[in-house]
Amino acid sequence: MVLLSGGIDSTTTLAIAMQEVEECVALTFRYGQKHAMEVSSAARVVRAMGVDTHLIVKLPLQDHVVSALTSDSITVPQGLKDGAGVSASIPPTYVPARNTIFLSYALAVAETTQAGRIYAGVSAVDYSGYPDCRPEFIRAFQQLADVATKRAAEGDRVEILAPLQYMSKAETIRRGGELGVDYSLTLSCYEPDNRGRACGSCESCGLRRSGFATANVKDPTHYQ
Amino acid sequence: MVLLSGGIDSTTTLAIAMQEVEECVALTFRYGQKHAMEVSSAARVVRAMGVDTHLIVKLPLQDHVVSALTSDSITVPQGLKDGAGVSASIPPTYVPARNTIFLSYALAVAETTQAGRIYAGVSAVDYSGYPDCRPEFIRAFQQLADVATKRAAEGDRVEILAPLQYMSKAETIRRGGELGVDYSLTLSCYEPDNRGRACGSCESCGLRRSGFATANVKDPTHYQ
Repeated sequence: MVLLSGGIDSTTTLAIAMQEVEECVALTFRYGQKHAMEVSSAARVVRAMGVDTHLIVKLPLQDHVVSALTSDSITVPQGLKDGAGVSASIPPTYVPARNTIFLSYALAVAETTQAGRIYAGVSAVDYSGYPDCRPEFIRAFQQLADVATKRAAEGDRVEILAPLQYMSKAETIRRGGELGVDYSLTLSCYEPDNRGRACGSCESCGLRRSGFATANVKDPTHYQ
Repeated sequence: MVLLSGGIDSTTTLAIAMQEVEECVALTFRYGQKHAMEVSSAARVVRAMGVDTHLIVKLPLQDHVVSALTSDSITVPQGLKDGAGVSASIPPTYVPARNTIFLSYALAVAETTQAGRIYAGVSAVDYSGYPDCRPEFIRAFQQLADVATKRAAEGDRVEILAPLQYMSKAETIRRGGELGVDYSLTLSCYEPDNRGRACGSCESCGLRRSGFATANVKDPTHYQ
C-alpha cells in the first residue's frame, strides 16, 4: 500500500515499492485540498505505471482543519523562505496531522486487505519542514501500528516504510530516473492553473525546480 | 476535545472532562456504522449536558474496511463469548484501526482549535478486547502526538487522556452516577431497532447489563 499524492516523492516511492513487492495498492486522498488537480495527477501516474489498484478516498478535512492548502483565506507563500532546500520554520502549507490521518487510514485498509507494508514518500531532506515527514514521526507511527490493530495483537506486523527518508530531492529524482519514472506526469505545485500547469513559484515548485537543477536532469514540468 | 460515541464510556468521559476543563468540544464520527443511531444518542447527550460544541464528522470507512459494525454481510455476535466481562479473543465487531483514525482526526482538529487535551473513553477492563482500547495503545498514540504536529514541534503538547482506562464498567457507571450522568440517554447496542431500543443480547448490551448489575444501579436502558 502506497500513499500517493501524485508528486515527485510519492511517485518515486511507488516505483520503489513496485520493485520490492508483488502487488501494489495506491491510496490517494481527496482531503479538501485546493489543488485537487493532484488527484488527477495521481490517477495518471497509476495508469502509466500499471498499478494494480488505486483507491481514492474522500476524507474531508477542510471544515475543521485550517491550512493554506485547504483554506481560501490563507495564502500559499511564494518561493523558498530562506532560498535553501528546507524552510527555516514550518510554513502555513502544513496541514494539521495530515500524514497521521493518512497513515491511520492506510493502516485500517491494510488490515482489511492484508497488505504487509505501507509506503510513505516522506523525506526529511529538501522538504518544507513538516513535522510529520521526519524520521522520528515514522518511527513513532511504526510503534503505534505495532500495538493498534488486531493483526498486530496476533503477531502480524505491518511495516511502515519511507524509502526516501534520507534522500535529497535531487537524489530522489535520479533514483526515479533509474526506475523509469516519467516526472512529466507528476504535479508538485500548490497552486496549479485549471489546465494542471504549475505556478513555478510556490515553495513546492521551488523545491522541485532546485531538485531537477541539482540532479542535472531536464525539468519536464509544464509551467504556466 | 472528547471522542463521543454516545455510549456509557464516552459519555462518562465527557462528564469527567467537563469537570476538569473550561470548554469542551465533543467529536462524533459517522464512519459508516450500521448502528448510526449512536450519533443521535451522542447529540442527545450533548444537549442534555450543555456541551459547548458538537462536531459530527463524516469519515466513511465502510467502503474499504471490513467489520461486523460496518458490513451487512458480517453478523454481530450475540452475548459475551465467555460469559465474563472481557472476550477471550478480539471479536468481529473490531473495526480496523478505528480509534487510531479517530484520535488522528481529533489531533488535527485539536491543533486547529488549540485544544490542550483529547479525551478517549477507552477502558481495558470489561471491554471487548479491542487492541486500540489498551493502555499501550494510548501510550503509543501519546508518543506519536508528541512528534506529529507543528504545535508539538513548537513545544505545545496535547495530552491524550483515558480516564476510564483501568475502571470496570460498574466503576464507570458509579462514577458517572456521582457526576449526574443520565444513562437513559446513552446507547451501547450494536443492533438497536429503528426506535433506538437496544437488542439486549449483543456483546455490547451484555457488557452494559452486567455493568449495571454489578454496580447495583438500576439499568435505565430501553430494551426491545
